[in-house]
Amino acid sequence: MEDTVTLCDIGNTSYHFYDGVEDRREDVLTFDPSSVKEEVYYVSVNSALTQRLSTLDQWHDLSKYVAWSSYYETMGIDRIMACEAIEEGLIIDAGSAITVDVVEAGRFMGGFIYPGIASMQKAFREISPKLDYKLSFELDLDKMPKNSQDAISYGVLATLYREVIRHNKKIYITGGDANKLAKIFPSATVDELLLFKGMKKMMEKRC
Amino acid sequence: MEDTVTLCDIGNTSYHFYDGVEDRREDVLTFDPSSVKEEVYYVSVNSALTQRLSTLDQWHDLSKYVAWSSYYETMGIDRIMACEAIEEGLIIDAGSAITVDVVEAGRFMGGFIYPGIASMQKAFREISPKLDYKLSFELDLDKMPKNSQDAISYGVLATLYREVIRHNKKIYITGGDANKLAKIFPSATVDELLLFKGMKKMMEKRC
Repeated sequence: MEDTVTLCDIGNTSYHFYDGVEDRREDVLTFDPSSVKEEVYYVSVNSALTQRLSTLDQWHDLSKYVAWSSYYETMGIDRIMACEAIEEGLIIDAGSAITVDVVEAGRFMGGFIYPGIASMQKAFREISPKLDYKLSFELDLDKMPKNSQDAISYGVLATLYREVIRHNKKIYITGGDANKLAKIFPSATVDELLLFKGMKKMMEKRC
Repeated sequence: MEDTVTLCDIGNTSYHFYDGVEDRREDVLTFDPSSVKEEVYYVSVNSALTQRLSTLDQWHDLSKYVAWSSYYETMGIDRIMACEAIEEGLIIDAGSAITVDVVEAGRFMGGFIYPGIASMQKAFREISPKLDYKLSFELDLDKMPKNSQDAISYGVLATLYREVIRHNKKIYITGGDANKLAKIFPSATVDELLLFKGMKKMMEKRC
């Protein structure tokens, strides 16, 4: 049954599995990949893990099927899979980093990388304990803030927002913080399975 | 001689002195404030240091002269001094944090806080060693990047740029990274002494 193949997207902090019905996450620090008995088709941005998985028979690296000339050499394979999933639009993948990529007529047009939400909060906390706030996603991005929590939240979110909306594209949001970011992009489509769609599409095209 | 009073702006990492002629910086970790013999009028965002300076006779805290109702309670005193320096415009203070504040007709209209350049580079480095790059300030902010260094630089700088320019204000840049940021805001006025101008103006008004 081709449809029930297991896919896995491996990030810096977690394995994200999808079996065609349900998705689940496992911590990279505690999960043992040799415990998986079925065939798994994966992409990984985690070099140490990729090394280890190459020694396991059930784990198949999809990065070898990528048409790299359409992307760039050091581009994260997770970003490439998300781009493969759509024909047109802007993709925000909000994980430990937030990546923003533009696709036009099925072609990758470029993208940028922004620190993730937790990383930004940590950066502020380390600059000064006075800046140790949780980001607020409910703030008005058209009004310059007059309190510390909003000043920090606006700094992270309004800046990202302005750059994203100037592209005038349909917005797709995926990744662990997708639902948080969706609050500032209310017209966006949240799709937790976007990368898996790209992986599947690429397998059908090339495998 | 009133004109030769010594001013000092104390941040999270350095003392910044100005005697009306020259400015110099001292590291907060190594400089001994009791070694200063002249009278010093200062502002400080460094709580531990403010505590200590309050016990030294030559050190005079200017924060007590601030009309706090025009600002907000937890706003950094350095941002307030920069705002006091101008009648109209947008101020970027690029230090360990980057603060952006808007002043209209002499009134503070609100502002936001963004991590500083070093803090952003550290955030990327900690997310993944693959993102360990120095920011490039020479990149084209109208072109979506297709390499890692530009993707990160664009993430930090294009986002900040879009939010700043939408205010359509004259831009003033100050702080340790002022000259770096001036590369993406070529029409901005770089003024390393902006805070001191605000401090002096406020002393003349209220002391």
